[in-house]
Amino acid sequence: MNALEKLLNQNNNDKFICVGLDTDFDKLPLHIKSSANSVLNFNKAIIDSTSEYCAAYKINFAFYEKDGEAGLKVLSETINYIPSNILIIADAKRGDIGNTSRMYAKSVFEYYNCDAVTLNPLMGRDSLEPFLDYSDKLNFILALTSNKGANDFQKLKLDNGRFLYQQIIEKVKEWNLNNNCGIVFGATNSEELNENINSFETLPVLLPGIGAQGGSLEDVVILFKTVNRKSFLINVSRGIIYKSSGEDFAEKAREEILSLNNQIDNILNL
Amino acid sequence: MNALEKLLNQNNNDKFICVGLDTDFDKLPLHIKSSANSVLNFNKAIIDSTSEYCAAYKINFAFYEKDGEAGLKVLSETINYIPSNILIIADAKRGDIGNTSRMYAKSVFEYYNCDAVTLNPLMGRDSLEPFLDYSDKLNFILALTSNKGANDFQKLKLDNGRFLYQQIIEKVKEWNLNNNCGIVFGATNSEELNENINSFETLPVLLPGIGAQGGSLEDVVILFKTVNRKSFLINVSRGIIYKSSGEDFAEKAREEILSLNNQIDNILNL
Repeated sequence: MNALEKLLNQNNNDKFICVGLDTDFDKLPLHIKSSANSVLNFNKAIIDSTSEYCAAYKINFAFYEKDGEAGLKVLSETINYIPSNILIIADAKRGDIGNTSRMYAKSVFEYYNCDAVTLNPLMGRDSLEPFLDYSDKLNFILALTSNKGANDFQKLKLDNGRFLYQQIIEKVKEWNLNNNCGIVFGATNSEELNENINSFETLPVLLPGIGAQGGSLEDVVILFKTVNRKSFLINVSRGIIYKSSGEDFAEKAREEILSLNNQIDNILNL
Repeated sequence: MNALEKLLNQNNNDKFICVGLDTDFDKLPLHIKSSANSVLNFNKAIIDSTSEYCAAYKINFAFYEKDGEAGLKVLSETINYIPSNILIIADAKRGDIGNTSRMYAKSVFEYYNCDAVTLNPLMGRDSLEPFLDYSDKLNFILALTSNKGANDFQKLKLDNGRFLYQQIIEKVKEWNLNNNCGIVFGATNSEELNENINSFETLPVLLPGIGAQGGSLEDVVILFKTVNRKSFLINVSRGIIYKSSGEDFAEKAREEILSLNNQIDNILNL
């Protein structure tokens, strides 16, 4: 199964939640903090309790890089622990000149063996091409992000009448020769999502911004249902993995994803 | 000395060359390839032969990340080997939502103890703020890059009449409250450099694109001299570190940087 097939397979089983493994030692339950390999053990427990119910895992590289080699060892071991039928997204927001992006692509797709990556398109097509050349992987390219700073540049209007994020989406469709591109579109931008969803065509959409950041799960699912589109991922990080700070954290994570899946099912089967 | 002082100190001694440590095992001289710790040994030899003559080292994180934990150990050891008076730039092109950027900033500035970083501003102010909060560090923010893909978005015209890269420069000046911002401006864009250099005001400028990518050292130095600006770095990576593929690679790297310094001196003292 290539990356897109993994995604569609889960989506077709009505699984849309992407669990964000933004694991921060400081936020771990006390009883885990005091154990050896605490972050890895936490991740394994979360994966054990959620992998049957989620569509993907998104691993935020920053949270591991901050601990240098030791952190990246945990990153590697976490990735190896995820069942092979579930899409693994390297949330790394990479993008650089060609010979450098080739190295980043090697890192994410070959060394860490992730299925997908998030990419920053500011440097243009040649900066992403080394990633796009991996035809069995998936590249989620930033279109409109979930944070306030999306206003600074992404929502600027160009002299052709389009907003910058719309121009990015048009380019991503051009670059999708290997059918291995998707976009990142922040769920906090519900108005823009409404107005632009038809322009996405068949691009899979990764939607961060639900939960801690304020986006609405319901709005997103209703909209995708309305346009009869099924290839999307709703990322939830803190809302799942830190649902409880007690010994029952993994159980509560499972309950939370089950509850989210239920909410989604109710909308889809209305 | 904070990062800006390190840079100005070198610039005031007419040192402007930033040596890019884009070290690729495949391109190492044969006799080094066969040794243990080959990339680290290569870097150490390059640093020994160039540190007296350069203004900074730029370490391209991708080239180390591609080897996972082992690569990052080499990255760490390379950084530790660089004399403390020389500016170390983490060329990492990071940028993400706030709580994630905080982790990236921790990684680059605290774990790896770099003086400076390259940042991608597409996600806006709050995505860079965790970096900007380190007042003793330097943040080189991508304005106009040296690659062909700079045309795709950076050179698009906004409806306010500015190009996107010009808008980025205006924002960077607003964000420079701690006097710790600079910009990346590709030396391949000589026309744009000419037309915009006065708008940079006091921002230090990191200029990639000389050498392998086609930018002209002479043009850049003449221009900065004309506007009486001294705070800039001309990055050269492949042109220095792979000047020779023989046993004399370090000696040839030294000769190359001396020759570049000579060319610069000749222009400045015309």
